[in-house]
Parts: sequence; C-alpha cells; structure tokens
Amino acid sequence: MFEKLPRCKVFRDPLYGYIKVEYKLIAKLIDTKEVQRLRRISQLSGVSMVFQTAEHSRFTHSLGAYQMANLVLENVSGAESLSEYERILFLCSALLHDIGHGPYSHAFETVMKVSHEEMTARLILSKYSEVNMVLNEEDKGLASDIASIILHKGKFTVIESLVSSQLDVDRMDYLSRDAYFTGAAYGVIDKERLLRCMLIKDNKVYVRASGVHSVESYIMSRYHMYWQVYFHPVARAYEVILESIYKRIKDLTENGINVDASVSSFLNAISDDIDIREYVNLDDAYVNGFIKQLTNSSDHILKELSIDFMNRHLFKYIDINKEQDQAELLKIEEKYKNKENSRYYYYEISITSSAYLETNSSLPLDINEITILLPNGEAMPLEEYSPIIKGLIQTSLKKSTRIFYHED
Amino acid sequence: MFEKLPRCKVFRDPLYGYIKVEYKLIAKLIDTKEVQRLRRISQLSGVSMVFQTAEHSRFTHSLGAYQMANLVLENVSGAESLSEYERILFLCSALLHDIGHGPYSHAFETVMKVSHEEMTARLILSKYSEVNMVLNEEDKGLASDIASIILHKGKFTVIESLVSSQLDVDRMDYLSRDAYFTGAAYGVIDKERLLRCMLIKDNKVYVRASGVHSVESYIMSRYHMYWQVYFHPVARAYEVILESIYKRIKDLTENGINVDASVSSFLNAISDDIDIREYVNLDDAYVNGFIKQLTNSSDHILKELSIDFMNRHLFKYIDINKEQDQAELLKIEEKYKNKENSRYYYYEISITSSAYLETNSSLPLDINEITILLPNGEAMPLEEYSPIIKGLIQTSLKKSTRIFYHED
Amino acid sequence: MFEKLPRCKVFRDPLYGYIKVEYKLIAKLIDTKEVQRLRRISQLSGVSMVFQTAEHSRFTHSLGAYQMANLVLENVSGAESLSEYERILFLCSALLHDIGHGPYSHAFETVMKVSHEEMTARLILSKYSEVNMVLNEEDKGLASDIASIILHKGKFTVIESLVSSQLDVDRMDYLSRDAYFTGAAYGVIDKERLLRCMLIKDNKVYVRASGVHSVESYIMSRYHMYWQVYFHPVARAYEVILESIYKRIKDLTENGINVDASVSSFLNAISDDIDIREYVNLDDAYVNGFIKQLTNSSDHILKELSIDFMNRHLFKYIDINKEQDQAELLKIEEKYKNKENSRYYYYEISITSSAYLETNSSLPLDINEITILLPNGEAMPLEEYSPIIKGLIQTSLKKSTRIFYHED
Amino acid sequence: MFEKLPRCKVFRDPLYGYIKVEYKLIAKLIDTKEVQRLRRISQLSGVSMVFQTAEHSRFTHSLGAYQMANLVLENVSGAESLSEYERILFLCSALLHDIGHGPYSHAFETVMKVSHEEMTARLILSKYSEVNMVLNEEDKGLASDIASIILHKGKFTVIESLVSSQLDVDRMDYLSRDAYFTGAAYGVIDKERLLRCMLIKDNKVYVRASGVHSVESYIMSRYHMYWQVYFHPVARAYEVILESIYKRIKDLTENGINVDASVSSFLNAISDDIDIREYVNLDDAYVNGFIKQLTNSSDHILKELSIDFMNRHLFKYIDINKEQDQAELLKIEEKYKNKENSRYYYYEISITSSAYLETNSSLPLDINEITILLPNGEAMPLEEYSPIIKGLIQTSLKKSTRIFYHED
Repeated sequence: MFEKLPRCKVFRDPLYGYIKVEYKLIAKLIDTKEVQRLRRISQLSGVSMVFQTAEHSRFTHSLGAYQMANLVLENVSGAESLSEYERILFLCSALLHDIGHGPYSHAFETVMKVSHEEMTARLILSKYSEVNMVLNEEDKGLASDIASIILHKGKFTVIESLVSSQLDVDRMDYLSRDAYFTGAAYGVIDKERLLRCMLIKDNKVYVRASGVHSVESYIMSRYHMYWQVYFHPVARAYEVILESIYKRIKDLTENGINVDASVSSFLNAISDDIDIREYVNLDDAYVNGFIKQLTNSSDHILKELSIDFMNRHLFKYIDINKEQDQAELLKIEEKYKNKENSRYYYYEISITSSAYLETNSSLPLDINEITILLPNGEAMPLEEYSPIIKGLIQTSLKKSTRIFYHED
Repeated sequence: MFEKLPRCKVFRDPLYGYIKVEYKLIAKLIDTKEVQRLRRISQLSGVSMVFQTAEHSRFTHSLGAYQMANLVLENVSGAESLSEYERILFLCSALLHDIGHGPYSHAFETVMKVSHEEMTARLILSKYSEVNMVLNEEDKGLASDIASIILHKGKFTVIESLVSSQLDVDRMDYLSRDAYFTGAAYGVIDKERLLRCMLIKDNKVYVRASGVHSVESYIMSRYHMYWQVYFHPVARAYEVILESIYKRIKDLTENGINVDASVSSFLNAISDDIDIREYVNLDDAYVNGFIKQLTNSSDHILKELSIDFMNRHLFKYIDINKEQDQAELLKIEEKYKNKENSRYYYYEISITSSAYLETNSSLPLDINEITILLPNGEAMPLEEYSPIIKGLIQTSLKKSTRIFYHED
Repeated sequence: MFEKLPRCKVFRDPLYGYIKVEYKLIAKLIDTKEVQRLRRISQLSGVSMVFQTAEHSRFTHSLGAYQMANLVLENVSGAESLSEYERILFLCSALLHDIGHGPYSHAFETVMKVSHEEMTARLILSKYSEVNMVLNEEDKGLASDIASIILHKGKFTVIESLVSSQLDVDRMDYLSRDAYFTGAAYGVIDKERLLRCMLIKDNKVYVRASGVHSVESYIMSRYHMYWQVYFHPVARAYEVILESIYKRIKDLTENGINVDASVSSFLNAISDDIDIREYVNLDDAYVNGFIKQLTNSSDHILKELSIDFMNRHLFKYIDINKEQDQAELLKIEEKYKNKENSRYYYYEISITSSAYLETNSSLPLDINEITILLPNGEAMPLEEYSPIIKGLIQTSLKKSTRIFYHED
Repeated sequence: MFEKLPRCKVFRDPLYGYIKVEYKLIAKLIDTKEVQRLRRISQLSGVSMVFQTAEHSRFTHSLGAYQMANLVLENVSGAESLSEYERILFLCSALLHDIGHGPYSHAFETVMKVSHEEMTARLILSKYSEVNMVLNEEDKGLASDIASIILHKGKFTVIESLVSSQLDVDRMDYLSRDAYFTGAAYGVIDKERLLRCMLIKDNKVYVRASGVHSVESYIMSRYHMYWQVYFHPVARAYEVILESIYKRIKDLTENGINVDASVSSFLNAISDDIDIREYVNLDDAYVNGFIKQLTNSSDHILKELSIDFMNRHLFKYIDINKEQDQAELLKIEEKYKNKENSRYYYYEISITSSAYLETNSSLPLDINEITILLPNGEAMPLEEYSPIIKGLIQTSLKKSTRIFYHED
C-alpha cells in the first residue's frame, strides 16, 4: 500500500552501519525543511563545553531513532502483528519526534508556553509545514495519528510506548549515540540483547524476566550518563546563562521595551500564537547571532550576560546537601537572593539521579514504566522484580540542590 | 638497578594496543615453563560451552594483568612514591598471580588440598621452578617478597591491594578481556577514568569521591558479568560434571583402587605432598586426555560421567527459591539425595550476586574493600557512600539455590 | 520444506553480535562430533607464538562463515533468486567447509595424501560420520551436493564461488576474525559495504564498479594480514619444525621403524586408506601429546626436534633476495644443504605477497577471480579495472625466499 | 622552564581516551578566541550532506593533532633528543595549524588572496590576536618560530615535517577522526604501529623498512578516504555552489555594486589588507546567515544560487574520461561554456587519486615525502621501496575530469 523506493536508500551511520530507507514517504519526510532544520540544532547543547566532541545534531539522532524503530520491527517478538499502517506510523513518529525542539532546548522550554512535544504535534498538524504536506499527500489520516502518538493520546498505546517511555527508541538511540560522540564509556548498551528480551503482547510492551539483566544494565547506563554527561555542572551552567538571557528578553518585551537585536523569530516562539512558518528559523546559529548583537545592548543586564556567554564565563556552581557547604551556601544566598534582578543571576536547581523514575508527569504511568513478564505469565513492575533498580529509585528520592550564581 | 632490555619488547594485545616489557627480568619470567603453561589453561573453562568465542587462556590474561600494573604505575596519583624494587615486585606479582591455577580451576580446587594462591606461592618459592630460578638470579629476596604479596602477608599492603582486592589489576584486566572475547557488552569498563580516580596515600589505595561513578559502573559490570557469563548455568554444569569425575578418581584412589587411565599428575596435585616438577604437566589437554581414556573405564561411574562429559551431555539444573519450582524440587531431592552415590550426581549450589561483597574470607577486609576519599580528607567505605552499591549488597544477601543433577 | 526450530537459536559472537540459527538441520550439524572437533583445532596454529591472543579455534570461524552466508543471503542483490534448497546447501557448505582440516594444518597437509578440501568432502560423504547421518536424515541428496560444492564440481557455481573463491564467506569471516583476535588493525573490512556491492546475476557473482573501492580495501587488508600475521616468520618457524617432526615420523614408519609414541591416529591420517572414524581423534592436543612423548624418543632426530618444539626453540630464518644477505646465505646453504638429514633441518620457502592472485590451482579460474560489472553491463577482471590491484599482482610476481634452518 | 599546570587538564576524546594538557601555555592557547572559533567551523564542510554524522569541528581535530604530537614525543625513537623549547614549538604548532582556515575552506580559498597556511601565520604574528598575546607572555620568540614552522621556512625541519608532510600529526589525526565520525571503515590506521616505525635521526624523519606495511596501509587508507569521503561528488557539489556565491559577491563588489546582505567580514577576508580582528567573525553560521539574506537579493544570480544552496538543490555532476560519457559531455559543454555568466554555473574539476603524491607545491619536496630507512642505513623514497605505492602513484597520473553544472 505504501509506495517503496525503487532501490533502498541508505545513510551511513557509525552506530548501525547503514540506516535503511525503504519507503518513499520516509525519504520525502527526511527532505522536509522541518527535519533538515534539526541539522542545525545540537543534540547536547552545552555539553560540548565539557565534552568537546559532542557536536552531533538532533538530525542524526532522529535518523537513529527511526533506525531503532526499524530494528524493533525486525527483532521484537510480537512486532509482526502490527499492520503496515501501524508500522508506518511508528517509523514516522520515531523520525519526527524531535522536530518541535528549539535551539538549546532546556533553556528554551522555560520561556515557551508549550512543551516540545506539543510543538512537534503542532508542526505535524499545521498546513504550513512541509511535513504536513508530505504526510497528507500519502494518506489523509497520518498527520493526526502521528500527532496523537507524540501526545500519548492512547489510540496506539504500543507505538506510543515504543516512541516515548522509559524503554523507547528515542533513549535506545541517544544513550548509545551520546556515548559514541562524547567518548564516555558508560552509554554502551547491548541493544541486540535488549530487543531480544522485549515482547509485544496484548497491546503492551514487556521485558521477559530472563532479560532483566540487560534492562538493569540499560538503566544503569542512563544513570551514569545523567551524572557524567547530561547533568554535568558546566553543561548546565551554559544552559542557565542562556535561560537568563531568554528571560530578560521576554521580560523587557512584555514591558514594552524593544530589545536591540534581531529577536523576532524568538519572540514568535514564546508568544501565545506561534506562526509555524517562522518557527523553523530558530536554530543554534540564530540564537548565537542575536546574543552576539546583544553584547552591544543598551540594557546592561542583557549586555553583561551576553558578553559572559560569548566568552564562556559561565555561572559558578555549588552543590549543597553536604554539610560542609552550608556556611558558604548561606553567604551566597544572602548575597544573591534578595538582590535586585537576582532572578537572572541566581538559580537553585534540584537534581535527582532519576535514571529510572523521572517520568514526564503528563504521560500516563502505565505506558511509561517497564514491566517484567515472568515465565508463569504474571507481570510485575521492574522495580519490584529488581532490587538494583529499587535501590536506584531510593537514591533518586534523595534530592540534592545545585546553586548556580553569577560572580561579580 | 634492575636491568632493562636494549629495546623494549612488545606484545600486541587487542585491549591495550601494545603490552610493553622493559625489564629483562619480566621477559625472562614470561619465558619460564610455569608462565608458558598458562597458554594451555583456558581462562573461562566451561564458559566456552555457552560463549563459544571464550577461548582465551590464562596466559593472555596474565600478560594483561601485568600491563594493567604498568598502567597503574603510570597513571595513579601516588604511585610515583613506590621504589623501583616495589614497582618490580608489583609487576612480577601481577604477571605471576595465576600460575598456581589448575586446569578447569573451580572444579580442581574442590579436590586439591591447597588454594590456588597457596599453590602460586609454592611455585614461586620452590627451587624446582624456573620462575624461582629466574627471580633468584636477579635478587635473592624477590621470590619470598612476591610470595608474601600473593598470600597477603601484610608486608607490602599497597601492592597486595593492587594485585588482589575488589579493585585490582586482576579484575580490571579480566572484566574487559572476558567481555572482549565473549562478545558480552557488559564488561566494558572505563579503565582510564578508574585509574585517574584512584589514589595511593598513607600506604593505602583510595578512590576519590569525584570518581564514585566510575567505580559504581565497574562494580555493576562485575555484577552483570557474573550473572551473564561466569555463573551461566551451562558453564557451571560443565564444571560440576568435572568435579564429579575428579571426586570419583580421588575416592577410588583413596580406597586403594587403581584408576585405569593416566592420572598420576592429577594424583600428585591432590596429594599432601605435591611435587612441583610434576605440577606443570597439568593442563586442559591433560585432563581431556585422561577423561577420554576413562570412557572405557571399568568403573561404571567414571565411565558414565566421562562419556557424558565427552558428548557434552551436561547435568540438568533448576533454580529454586521461586515458589513455582518447589514441587519439582522435592521430586528431584527425593530422587537423588538419598540415592547411592548421589554425591556424584547431585549438587546444591548456593548462588549470590556477590559482585561487590564476595570477599575471600582469608584476606583481611580492610585491604579488600574499596574506600572512598572525600574532599575533606575523610575516608568512607564504598557501600556507605554509594546507595547503588548498598542496594547491590542487599541483593546479594538473598541467596538462591541452583540444583544440578544427572538425568538418567 | 526444511524444518525450522521453534525458537531461533543464537550464538553470541563479538563480530556479528548474534549468529542466528533458524533451521533444525543447522543446529544438528553444529552438534556433530566432526564440527565440535574444530573447537580443539586452532585457527591460526603457530601465529599464537607471535600474537599470543590468537587462540581462537576453527569452530568459531566455521560459525562465522555460516553467519556470513546468512548475511550474503539477506543483503546481496540477486540472492533472493536462490531456492530454499540452494540456500540450505550454501549455509551447510559454509558451516562445514573446514571439517577436513588437521591440527596445525599447513604442516599436516605436507604429509597427507589428500588436500583438506578432499578430506572435508570425504567426511561429508562417509557413512561413518555424524555429519553424513544428519544430512541424510534430512534429505538424501544433500551430502553429495555439499561435497560437490566443496570440491568445485561446477554443479552450483554461484554457491561454489560464494563458499570458496577470492571473495567468499570464508575469507570475509577470517580476515575480520583474525584481526579481532590478534589485535592487528589491518583486517578491518567493511563487510556491509562489500555485500551491498556484490551482485548475483546470470549464475555468477559480480562486484559493481561503484564498489571497487571496497574490494580494493578488502584485498589490501588481505595483503597486510598475510605479511603481518599469516606469513610472520616466527609463526612459520613453528610450522616448519612441526613439518620436520611429521616427516620424520612418516619416514621412519615407511622404513618399518616403530615410533615410540602414540601416533596411530596420525599414521591413519597420512595413510592411503584413511579411516574416517579415527580421523576425528586428531586435534591440537593429540599432536602436542605425542610430541611430548617423543622428547624421550630413541630416534635422536625426533628427540631433538621434539625437545626444541616443546621449549619453543624454533628454527632460525633469513630472508634472501636482499643483496646484503648473500654472503651469509651461502654459508648457511653450504653448511646445511649437503648435510645428512638436511631435509629435517633446512627449508627454502618461496614467499609471495599473493593477496590477490594466490589461486588454488585446482579450481577453475573463472569462479575464483573477482569480476567487476560496469554500468553499461560489461564485465571486467578486477585487475584490469583497478591499477592498485594490478600493482599488487606485479609485486606478487617478485618472489623472495626465506630460509629456515636449525641452529646447532 | 615552561610552567606546568598544578594538575594535568584532560579532554575526553573518543579516539585517544584522554587528551592531556600539562603546560599552562597550551591551556591558555586553547582558550583564545582564535582557537575557540574553530568550534564553529566544520572539519568536513559539505561532506555532511552525504555522511550526515560528519558534524565534527576543526576544534576537535586541532586538539587531536596536538594529542598526536604528544604521542609522537612519547613514542617515536629519537624524539627524546628534542629540547623542551622544540617540544613546545611542536605542540603549539600542532594545536594552531588550522586557525587560519575560513568557513567552508575549499571554496573560501578560491576567493582569498592568501593560503590558509599564510593566514594561520598572520594570526599567530598579529599583535591583535589573543594567540599572539598568549605566546608573547610566555616567550618573545615563540610566535615567530611557530609561524616559521607553519610556513616551512626550514629553521626546524623535523618539526615542520611532523606538523605538515605526507606523514604528519595532522593527517594521522584527521584520517582516524573523519573515519570515526563518518562511520567510514577505511580510515582506520594503526597509529601505535606507525609511531613505533618512525625514527628521528640526523634532523630528518624516517620510517624503518620493517614498518613499511604500516605506512602502505596508512597511505591506502588516505586513498580510500579521498575517494569515498573527501572527493564525494555531492560533498564537492556543495562546495562548488558556495564558490559561485563567493565569486559573485566578489565580482559585484569589485564592480562597485553593493551586495544587499551583511558581508563586510567576508569582504575583509578577501581584501588585500585583512583586518585580523574582523577575521575571527568568520564562521559557518556567518556564511549561512548572509546566504539566507541573499535569497532576497536584487541580483538574480545571487538570489538563484542562494535559494538553491538553502534548499540543497546542488549542481549536477558528470565524470568524463569514460568514453560513453563523451556525447553527453559535448552537449553540456556547448550549453554552458559559452553561456553568459557560465563562470558561476559550470566547473571542470580535475580529480586525481593523489593519496600519496599530492604535495603542496609550495613546500620543499624532501620534507614532504616519506623516506624509508633500510637496515644497512641507506635511505630510499617510499615509492621506490614499495611497489604498491608506486602503483598508486601511477594511478594518480591518470587524471579524470568531473563537470559540475547548474541545471536550469
């Protein structure tokens, strides 16, 4: 039903050898400007300040997530029961799941009024997007079905779970990919064994009890990647200063003050009424471009933050929860919390090693968690079956706080 | 003081690129028949029944442990304080630590009267070994100092700890090596970061708190390698049948019955008075050789077990502690436990995921455990500092039992 | 038609992740004693004297060649036209292609009366082999068809070419495997791209012109592996001394002199009338066993050679063709060539870098060579299309000579 | 003499594990804006249109070349004779060798009046660069000595050769790095063995004859990377369209016509009198930025080319020298060569597989070529010693031509 390419198209990829594209639809989606824009958005943003080789983009990750979806279809027991339409939905959703991301996404979402998932769905549904056009040309129902998967509407629960849950094609690709491109040894996961242990049954994804070790190992990899790479304080400090710049622009604009730089596409993205056609202008270079202009801003806060950002003079940080830091903490709090404009210069960020639990609270939990299938047919949450994972969750409950502050 | 080779000798190794030998003494030790014998002893014995590429020998591992010792000397802070004599002791001990192992070592130690560490020390000290001769030619004190390190006599605690503890050059090499040669993804450890986090201070080895993640990751690798590779029931079943053969030969001999196969070197090894010159005859092929002869034994127990061994008809196994197995367990127990000669046909083996705790109880605990050094100078046991490791230890306390039995 | 296993069986392999066995027939062939015997025969014999980690067996390579056959069937254009019967022939031939090899095969073939290919065919056809029994149970024609493929009888030319030619599943596996297990960097070949460039058409295997670079790279890998690994003089010296021992045993026996060691299985293998049931006793340990016995031989030649072999006192070697060596060469020649029994102590071996040409002269050349398919449909021998390969062949014509000699 | 950091600074790198920085000077150079600018310049420009994961920057390569220099100092025989000053010169030159590159460098150099080496030297020598300031703070002679190495002035021939020749730290890093980040298998080189075979003697770099295979393998890797990656027609087509845009801007400006986009930094770079302070504004994003503006240009040529560039509608290409293409070639030539403005729409590019010879003609040949040192002390050019390399050079003489043309 879905047309195939005369000859399978391939993309070389260090993680998979070749990423194969069979369907014409997929080839056309890859060529849309919404997907191509992801070439210009770094996957790990500020992490490259610490791991300088982490220069890969969301585009290469999106192709990787698509390829993982192919591997799921080929290797997971029970996947053969999916119809061709469902397979296409799965492949498209994996490919498109990140198109809503803005540049330096963590900081960006703090000023946007919608989540990146919602933004992805809007791009898929908007008549102004090339993605929407390509999907509609193929089948009128595709766009809304894919958007419903991205938003976990519950219509295609197995696919929703495979696209976004605690064991999904997104994480399976990015853990390996981020490890490969940073050189961190921790993200090595045994994807082949993981896939062999997964099982689709009765409209739900399970992991066989015999494969619990490969899931434990995968969760531990996430845990270590979080601490070593994703939560690295220098990477976070880079995003914190960006957040301050974004907030200051927003505050000035809301108070009717013009910012002296080309920020119209940015303002569009944080407005109530986002114009989809302008959203695709947002990329890393665009943000770097206006920050460079802002080093000459007449607003001294913007000017100072932008100069610091350009020269990589990042915020300092201190971890509290360790007794010995309390004295210094009080000094910093006193100095900053009550200061004017401290909202741009002082951040308390709660950090948890939520390698397993960290659920997106907007998603229904039953899809998100990992379920173990015992030989007797009984199902059990991963954390009940595995004491290691239970231990990990207990660790996560102990939050610690990291303070980022601007040093004069 | 210790003579160097005119040009550094190198051994190619897939894990390290090159293993470098600078000292003449090391080159001569590698060429002794006690070290060369390790070429003929498989590192993982029965594991190759499951992971068929696990064909590497204790020789390649011994070179690897020696190379890890080199890397420790080059990379661990504080190692520069060791004298040249201590460095030589360390390198020799790492190279020689396994020479006492018999073929299919697990099974072998059940019938020997001495541990493999004790056997290693005897070989080093015996005037009949080439190793002893080479050491004595260089320095009269070396042999006894190395033997004292192998036996943890407390004279060189830092070296003892680096050669054999829960974080030692032995494990650092074999986890990586066994992963590489089996293809198991779990054993990947970040050796470079581990070494950077270790610290020798006040005659003790520490891990800096900032490096706790790399130690957690290393311990988790051990945990997964234990379950996936070392404790694999088929690998164990292979060793269990060997143990039965060994026991039967021993029992017959002790009752004055001659075994109709060439087992004299074997009998020497399990005697009270081991002749070191004959010990080096023991290797995998020797054991396979007499078992092949025993397929024609007049003792029907030896005959049956040997035929099964040769044809890889291994014992069956069942894990208990899961409720649903209780019924079947009782049937098996009833059938075997009270049967004649059940000691050859029935094994209850307690298995624990002791990736961290499993201490050799003959070693003093303070050397064996991993100690975290906090920034304020305080020291703390790993399990107190890391909730993950604490969780892991709790798992280990829950023992489960695996029954191996011969099916008629 | 051919029965499949209820659940696909897998073998973990570091090169392929998993080797998959779908057919019951394949699973049963793997369990035969002829295939299991390959576990006890080293793939690279004397090479482990130089590259100590080269301890892998012909068994793991045979599984690898079988897996490469699977990959060919999945990835090479035109393979879909093969019938199920042909696919089974291909898989079985790849798995079984090495079962005729003796221990330390190079040396062995110098005293045997048949080639290892012929021996493989005999084992497949003999009613005394388990392989034959398993094949016959499945289909009466299989054994003879597989034997005809091994012997290149011309009945299944495409399969013959894929099993044994200059671009076959045998080489594709062993180049990668030997590189992986020795740690030599040269054998890395881009198997995925190679397979994508191959094409089965009109009953012949081609390589598309667009893929010539991947074939050039593959041939150059062979070239470098030959020089760095396979032809390494120390590895060869190990085989040369074995050859002398084999020859001496043969000579004594043919002169009616009993050799005082257990060599009956060896004598069977070099006889005119090989008993297939005894052939499977031959493995590396068997050879090492009788050589150990021969260190006490009453024949002083056997005694001397065996002692040297056991102590790794290998023959010396010298490469001639370089002017500066001529003087020393003459001295050696004079000393050895006319000496009594020099046939055991002196070897002139012609070495050529025949990474491409080295054809087994018993095979018809058209199957063996690599043919490039141009976009216009024209076919052309690789060496005509690629000047690199032409250069390589010219190098090969310049033979050099290596002398191995026993130093008193 | 040169101050070291209190604790060695490290950069994680997937190729080397850790890149180590011991000297304060190096750490400060890395932080200059000229070196940091390289983070914003892609190493492989248009190659990411074909190998989408080739997103790494010149910054990561520059750190890599610096690390290779460290490895040369540690591993190459004879390097120990270099003074500390020379070692520092070498490390700095390796780190800084690429700072003169513009964005999309190939296209850029066609419109610039100076080579990138010359530009690198100017940046090092200019009092307006941070690099110059940092060097001067340390030692007044450094800047001019480093510039002289970059320009091969002959003062430090060994270092010049190690920084830029046919066997240099630049190529050794980028071949491996580009292979790693593209996923191409061809660039795998055995750096450890290469370094072991190199030798510094009598003020010249040699390769020992015993190591010729590792150099052949390295040259073949270059050859295959050139054809598969660097010369990929799609990558080149991307650069060709950029070249047209650059040329059109230049032509308009030289004719006094203002270009309606922010191109002042670009015009500075192609002027006779480059202002170093403005040069550092040039990066990939800057070029993308003005091309985006030019999609609305009033000059229809710039407008058309820019729109095509933004939408990745690259030029078509055809390879000639194959007889069958002659007819089509004539058609294209006729159509384009005599057309108005064909200089923007039609390119004939001569391509040669110059993996070995391709010398930068501005460099003296004796430094650039690879010299083999025979055991008898005689030196010989690589191509005389190795027939493989001779064959490769002959291939290179056969130039072929690739036509890129804009399709209406």
